[in-house]
Amino acid sequence: MKISRIEHIGIAVKSIEESLPYFENVLGLKCYNIETVEDQKVRTAFLKVGEVKLELLEPTCPESTIAKFIENNGGKGGMHHMAFNVEDGVANALAEVEAAGLRLIDKAPRKGAECLNIAFLHPKSTAAVLTELCEQPK
Amino acid sequence: MKISRIEHIGIAVKSIEESLPYFENVLGLKCYNIETVEDQKVRTAFLKVGEVKLELLEPTCPESTIAKFIENNGGKGGMHHMAFNVEDGVANALAEVEAAGLRLIDKAPRKGAECLNIAFLHPKSTAAVLTELCEQPK
Repeated sequence: MKISRIEHIGIAVKSIEESLPYFENVLGLKCYNIETVEDQKVRTAFLKVGEVKLELLEPTCPESTIAKFIENNGGKGGMHHMAFNVEDGVANALAEVEAAGLRLIDKAPRKGAECLNIAFLHPKSTAAVLTELCEQPK
Repeated sequence: MKISRIEHIGIAVKSIEESLPYFENVLGLKCYNIETVEDQKVRTAFLKVGEVKLELLEPTCPESTIAKFIENNGGKGGMHHMAFNVEDGVANALAEVEAAGLRLIDKAPRKGAECLNIAFLHPKSTAAVLTELCEQPK
């Protein structure tokens, strides 16, 4: 697989509104997009830092996996996942990763935030870092 | 404060030797340096992905904060901290951050891995993300 860069770092937050002042006013980063990803039950805010995005993830309901992550983390949120941009496509990367014996969460690419094609690998196979592979839409 | 990029993402691992094959053989990244940071009681392995480094952190003794992080995380490790490169210097950034009322771990810059000048901010003030500010050595 050919990884060109970290696409984004996903950060679970209880509230985007309460977290943004830290990222914008203290760190000086700029939020350029907020959108809701219905099937993941999250609202996401994107900020750019160099070639990488920070993706703030706020649960939209208690059944959201992000709500559960925050609950399991003492109600605090924190870094949730790391996403890599793969140049040879997510489907190819998944085939490689499966052949190498890794555990997958997604067996095939699906649509994520910002219309990216994405798939998640299981943290049991990825040094305990929940890992997402991303491909820019064609 | 002027942040130019993410300097590195710190990932706690039980064993660098056991983790590297995933990062090198599956993700195709290359480890270019392994060093021990005595005062932090860690051995660190660095890999480059785009403009960002991944810093694998292995505890060198049970009293290491990384050993405690792994223990508190069900023995699994995972993403530990996020480090930003600040262009106007760590000392200036710390003064700004303290004036903004944030909680600091380090009141003054100190030497970190790869001879960077570094300081940590407390996750209570940084959306639950343990945050490091870094400055390239002069």
